[in-house]
Amino acid sequence: MSIRYLTSKLAQQIDEELMSASGAFSIDQLMELAGLACAQTLATVYKKETHPRVLVCCGPGNQGGDGLVAARHLGMFGYLPTVWMPKPGNKDIYKIPIIPPSNETEPLRKALADADVILDAIFGFSFTPPVRAPFDSALPLITESKLPIVSVDIPSGWDVERGNAEGVGLNPDVLVSLTAPKEGAREFKGQHFLGGRFVPKTLEEKFNLNLPQYPGIDQIVELPSTELENTQKL
Amino acid sequence: MSIRYLTSKLAQQIDEELMSASGAFSIDQLMELAGLACAQTLATVYKKETHPRVLVCCGPGNQGGDGLVAARHLGMFGYLPTVWMPKPGNKDIYKIPIIPPSNETEPLRKALADADVILDAIFGFSFTPPVRAPFDSALPLITESKLPIVSVDIPSGWDVERGNAEGVGLNPDVLVSLTAPKEGAREFKGQHFLGGRFVPKTLEEKFNLNLPQYPGIDQIVELPSTELENTQKL
Repeated sequence: MSIRYLTSKLAQQIDEELMSASGAFSIDQLMELAGLACAQTLATVYKKETHPRVLVCCGPGNQGGDGLVAARHLGMFGYLPTVWMPKPGNKDIYKIPIIPPSNETEPLRKALADADVILDAIFGFSFTPPVRAPFDSALPLITESKLPIVSVDIPSGWDVERGNAEGVGLNPDVLVSLTAPKEGAREFKGQHFLGGRFVPKTLEEKFNLNLPQYPGIDQIVELPSTELENTQKL
Repeated sequence: MSIRYLTSKLAQQIDEELMSASGAFSIDQLMELAGLACAQTLATVYKKETHPRVLVCCGPGNQGGDGLVAARHLGMFGYLPTVWMPKPGNKDIYKIPIIPPSNETEPLRKALADADVILDAIFGFSFTPPVRAPFDSALPLITESKLPIVSVDIPSGWDVERGNAEGVGLNPDVLVSLTAPKEGAREFKGQHFLGGRFVPKTLEEKFNLNLPQYPGIDQIVELPSTELENTQKL
């Protein structure tokens, strides 16, 4: 049985169940584990000796919150994270350098010049096209930087279910899917990790997720590309 | 510089700073990372192949909350946790079997007979003697079970600063100190881990904590016994 790829609606439903009686998680708990998984994925692929300066690009929703938590953990791991969050919510910033919110492209352009790797926490599974300002001009800038990109859950700009059909999305090197991969990630060809080791067996069975085994006490697991191929044959 | 051992008051103060502007953590976030560190410590020392049945003993305070989170992670790691929490708070139980709250000793006695290892999350750094019912009769029962014990932050029944001076505390095999070890843990002779990789550098310096390096992306680090000896010589 292959791992299940989720629609946006199903991903939303699972999040709701996790926060309802059947899971009893608070949003803070889920975000903490999600952000930790993102930070561990980036640190597994890009070592701090070669890629110390991480630009964490945060969107306006919960995905941006995951990014902030990831930035904090990356700081604890010894990286030098900087947060780009042009539309900050009411989440706190954990004492990480944040680029002042702006609709201009210049601050991001400068931050990209000083970065070694990008954590893309701009859009998550509730994203619906089109990409709005200031992100519409940010995505091409990020692509042009040619920096390695680690995307959270779904590469920003991709349709959650149809993938990069519009061609306006990022092309990340690494993807960390949270809870279960989204439909749109089927066509992703890079290094693919799964994070969010918090789905109860009951939920996994209810939604036929067929999650892989996480090794030992790890909070992330790499998905073999063979598994992806098998899934695509279904 | 040796790692600093905390008084109860200092531990309280650091927790408050972590949740204030300088740290900006919510209690849920701290508890999630603390509980994960406890679960990872137990799983590092007692493998699920040999010690699958974990009895998680939870006190009435935040320490009990850490225990509940640890129980949930242990379940995700493949252990079979059972929670003994005679004075439940308003925290949710994450669908883990819980022994019905009771002042009787019989339910705990039965649970001990069915367990392979104990996670002791009964009292934390705000504990002040004496041990009150039903925990006064529970601690001797736990000791008499001869099961291996992993204690969280300070072995239950120990004075947070003076250690097991009264002789009424547990004698755990493993201790996982959270944030920084407490003064009373100086005399602990077993396997000692540190968890809670969330103390910002500014706080570490403000309180001269001299924390050890956590390896890679790990959330726990084992404290070498030589380091403990050096500290005791100060």
